[in-house]
Amino acid sequence: MEKERIARVVERMKKMDLDQTLISAPASIFYLTGKWIYPGERMVALYLDVHGRATLFANRLFALSGTVDIPLVEYDDTEDCVAILAEHMTPGKIGIDKDWPSRFTIRLMEARSDLTPVIGSPCIDQTRLYKDEKELALMRESSLKNDTSILNTIQQLKLGLTEAQVGDIYLKESAAQGSTGPSFEPLICFGANCAEPHHVTDLSVLKPGDSVIIDVGLTWRSYCSDMTRTVFMGKASDEQKRVYDLVRAANAAGRAAVRPGVPMREIDRAARKVIEDADYGKYFIHRTGHGIGLEVHEFPDVSASSEAIARPGMCFSVEPGIYLPGRFGVRVEDLVAVTEDGCETLNQAPRDLVEIEI
Amino acid sequence: MEKERIARVVERMKKMDLDQTLISAPASIFYLTGKWIYPGERMVALYLDVHGRATLFANRLFALSGTVDIPLVEYDDTEDCVAILAEHMTPGKIGIDKDWPSRFTIRLMEARSDLTPVIGSPCIDQTRLYKDEKELALMRESSLKNDTSILNTIQQLKLGLTEAQVGDIYLKESAAQGSTGPSFEPLICFGANCAEPHHVTDLSVLKPGDSVIIDVGLTWRSYCSDMTRTVFMGKASDEQKRVYDLVRAANAAGRAAVRPGVPMREIDRAARKVIEDADYGKYFIHRTGHGIGLEVHEFPDVSASSEAIARPGMCFSVEPGIYLPGRFGVRVEDLVAVTEDGCETLNQAPRDLVEIEI
Repeated sequence: MEKERIARVVERMKKMDLDQTLISAPASIFYLTGKWIYPGERMVALYLDVHGRATLFANRLFALSGTVDIPLVEYDDTEDCVAILAEHMTPGKIGIDKDWPSRFTIRLMEARSDLTPVIGSPCIDQTRLYKDEKELALMRESSLKNDTSILNTIQQLKLGLTEAQVGDIYLKESAAQGSTGPSFEPLICFGANCAEPHHVTDLSVLKPGDSVIIDVGLTWRSYCSDMTRTVFMGKASDEQKRVYDLVRAANAAGRAAVRPGVPMREIDRAARKVIEDADYGKYFIHRTGHGIGLEVHEFPDVSASSEAIARPGMCFSVEPGIYLPGRFGVRVEDLVAVTEDGCETLNQAPRDLVEIEI
Repeated sequence: MEKERIARVVERMKKMDLDQTLISAPASIFYLTGKWIYPGERMVALYLDVHGRATLFANRLFALSGTVDIPLVEYDDTEDCVAILAEHMTPGKIGIDKDWPSRFTIRLMEARSDLTPVIGSPCIDQTRLYKDEKELALMRESSLKNDTSILNTIQQLKLGLTEAQVGDIYLKESAAQGSTGPSFEPLICFGANCAEPHHVTDLSVLKPGDSVIIDVGLTWRSYCSDMTRTVFMGKASDEQKRVYDLVRAANAAGRAAVRPGVPMREIDRAARKVIEDADYGKYFIHRTGHGIGLEVHEFPDVSASSEAIARPGMCFSVEPGIYLPGRFGVRVEDLVAVTEDGCETLNQAPRDLVEIEI
């Protein structure tokens, strides 16, 4: 049980005027108990009150008894799990995880008309936003392993490979680094596919002149990495070079803007301005970044509409891109951690223009 | 808009004494509107009242205007989507999809204290259970394409391939059949990995004497297939042959038990009995099957605890297996559709013992 983290969640519960909350996101339960539990169709919930008392409710199938140092209430498939849970609550407001399936919330309300459900997620999501030293060390290691895996993958690029094969090369390289798995499906794009940020890795074949986007991440002791490098198959054209330099400069400008007190929207602005000033603004069609940690997408949003402000311990991506429909695209993505006086870039892999000899 | 299907949902709403319901599962919205919409973090919901009036609520980003023949209410990221939705409802009970994230349900209740949420999913889930002729034709085509893909994959098995490579061969073969993608990640197991029903395809290498489980499915015009064949690398041992014959017989017995009026638990029993009678009962450690259609796992459950009864139009898997820890495993899985007087097996791929020459 992570007592210090629970204490921080309780502080936020008090600010939210919340005496009790249910935490159900697997990453949040791991964060507080050290145990990953994937409930599937079944119910798993951590009940936490404002005195810091925690109880874990889980199906006996998950065989948690003896594996967690937290009071455990188990049930089996023949029992009414929500009724068992409902008995433990005190009348009044109850925080509910934003993603908890409605079938549980509705049955809880049916069982206990004296409970008023409210969205309780901010107390845990806002706590997870600030990585502690132990987490930062793992985030750093995860990104360094990702650096090595992507560089080893780039070395194996050759004409005729498919996007799916390049994805498999990355998976093999990241497994060789000791990763327990990718943090998301490798996104590999060749040529015109690079211009679609929502392209799905397919059987397209690598050709001379293609830009190659490699957007990949791995998990290392539960912590996610996520980075993108773009390289060119053969000599890059003048336009490819110009676009590449712009995106690299936008990535650098975004990272340079990160320090405590700076709003996320200004970090977005700093990266976007470089691209807009060169008249490519309309080809940078997504937010600049997203938070990351135990999950590959967490708070905060690094976008024009974000209300969040950079604070020490926050980790997020800076990933500007330029996408020229039907032709090519470039994205350069690194993770940063906000420090006391600026930021630390977690990725060390070089960002120089790479032209693969063909 | 699928008027006949909506009429069937409305009939079930009346039986549930439900005047209005919100449908949010993407497969259910596709079933009624012909449109797949993946909401991600955003809200998409189909509001349906007991008079069959339907309204689709969706973020403008999904660009649905002009693409659906159903009244559409659009909103954007700056608007309060739940408040817009709330205005359309009449006081009283409102059916909510079992998997709708609680953040929407809770905000809906906060906006409208005169609404009582109840779990509304059965009205649509029970309708989707019975496939109509158009759906049955697609289910049949999907499984025949899966048959061809798995047979083509088996022909390419050779020593030294990894499980992941065999999965990729299947993906390529199913793409060649025109599939838009797998219905789930190919599950390929070699040797002792076959004894773990929850094994994840990895980089294990194919060796002489291995059993090879190939559990795969594809989507064809939105309909899922799902089948398993087990083959042997080289000559099967006497025990491998005995286990294989048992599982094949259990699969046949399960399918032979399917006809209208038969409870799912009796179909499970018929398959399980073959394995139990040969004293391998404790090695058949999962349910016999699951429903399938627009999603790869739907109602009903084919298990000892299932309350469902076979009715014409239901489609489900029959997939007994024997798993000998640390050694090998066998599973043989086919899809069936319940007919007026029995069942149709949707898979045509042979179930004879296959020993790959090495």
